Amino acid sequence: MSSFNTMFAVRSLLRTAHIRYAAAAQFHATSNCCGAKVAVVLSGCGVYDGTEIHEASAILVHLSRGGAEVQMFAPDVTQMHVIDHSKGQPVEKESRNVLSESARIARGNITVLDKLSANNHDAVIFPGGFGAAKNLSTFAVDGKDCSVNEEVVRVLNEFHKAGKPIGLCCISPVLAAKVLPGVDVTVGQEEEEGGKWPNAGTTQVITALGAKHTAKNVTEAHVDQKNKVVTTPAFMCETKLHLIFDGIGAMVRDVLKLCGK
Amino acid sequence: MSSFNTMFAVRSLLRTAHIRYAAAAQFHATSNCCGAKVAVVLSGCGVYDGTEIHEASAILVHLSRGGAEVQMFAPDVTQMHVIDHSKGQPVEKESRNVLSESARIARGNITVLDKLSANNHDAVIFPGGFGAAKNLSTFAVDGKDCSVNEEVVRVLNEFHKAGKPIGLCCISPVLAAKVLPGVDVTVGQEEEEGGKWPNAGTTQVITALGAKHTAKNVTEAHVDQKNKVVTTPAFMCETKLHLIFDGIGAMVRDVLKLCGK
Repeated sequence: MSSFNTMFAVRSLLRTAHIRYAAAAQFHATSNCCGAKVAVVLSGCGVYDGTEIHEASAILVHLSRGGAEVQMFAPDVTQMHVIDHSKGQPVEKESRNVLSESARIARGNITVLDKLSANNHDAVIFPGGFGAAKNLSTFAVDGKDCSVNEEVVRVLNEFHKAGKPIGLCCISPVLAAKVLPGVDVTVGQEEEEGGKWPNAGTTQVITALGAKHTAKNVTEAHVDQKNKVVTTPAFMCETKLHLIFDGIGAMVRDVLKLCGK
Repeated sequence: MSSFNTMFAVRSLLRTAHIRYAAAAQFHATSNCCGAKVAVVLSGCGVYDGTEIHEASAILVHLSRGGAEVQMFAPDVTQMHVIDHSKGQPVEKESRNVLSESARIARGNITVLDKLSANNHDAVIFPGGFGAAKNLSTFAVDGKDCSVNEEVVRVLNEFHKAGKPIGLCCISPVLAAKVLPGVDVTVGQEEEEGGKWPNAGTTQVITALGAKHTAKNVTEAHVDQKNKVVTTPAFMCETKLHLIFDGIGAMVRDVLKLCGK
């Protein structure tokens, strides 16, 4: 093989990848023209300061298998802070943007949250991770007295008023609990059970927010039929990754079922 | 509920999460004491400058389902560069560490690559993403004349000499093609097929490196039985995410089969 061809192949890999990966609709869509149109709202990239990566990926795999057409969104805001995930500690003087970091999960194909309208989508899903509690709301700092990003408030209210399903997992159900009065959600079990549910106390904050909490196991989704809100515990449970993947699959399937497509 | 309890729950969420998430072996392991011990080598976090996130996550889900005990590794080196994934462009004057960024995928539970020994594991798997071609090797710049990180060279040779399986996907097979003479790998199809395989030219570089290339589809894994090297195209193919997930599942199952556990 000539070195020209070799270099062409390599340059082609470099040159096209940024364009083609970013432009590729097929990662987010399917050839099924009539699948549900689902918006996924990200909050960064990494469990401690952004979206929980494996929750987001599981949501996208299950949406793909379910024939959904996916569009990803994130707010164009600065992260609350940056955590060095190898040390579990904040990095001083470092700043990252939620939209740019979320784009790592979206492989570049992401839209600013302001542009998300319930008119254009059949459902919306929020993965968990501390980004939901740090960048989409102040829950990690303020608990039941938290405020929620105004675009997130608008999006939740729009989908709710339109009678379109909302899916959330892990810590994200606190967003619905804060914004949608009386919503019924799960963040898992209500006792720690020897460390299996280390954040079981969150269930009490859910009720303090005026919502109802229903205890569920990690492979289950909970459906609030009245509000069309579907939740699953995901990484609120210390367990094997494939069980978290399966619970998210149950949540995604229930969301798609509620889309009626 | 009292505000004390509310704040306790919130503080508990914040305080324990960093410790418990990082310490939790259950994310990486199963209760099956006799499962295969598999090392996964990461190269950052995000397709354009690190590990492809969805490939890594799929590998971990399938390893979990297969009963494997997983330990993640990454080199403690500076990334070749930082790409703003929302723009597809390098960020000037920003620098990130491969180990710290890989820890986002590993939820904090990651070990420096120097400590990976084939004596302690039954198999090793390398996800793809440009990190493999930028941080684990110079393939993105130098093509067939690339050099490979010396710890990656050592790890590949150790597992190969010990007759222990090596799994790779997407662009990572170039690492095996460079280091293991005459290895037989796949990076997908050998023609672009109208954009379905935009980096089909990489197959020519594989042969220029002295390796053999076998064309496979995205849901298939290719097994080089003699060298115990298992590969699958993953994101080399422009297709639906769940098909990439399934192809990675085939690769992981073949790796575990070769472990004989």
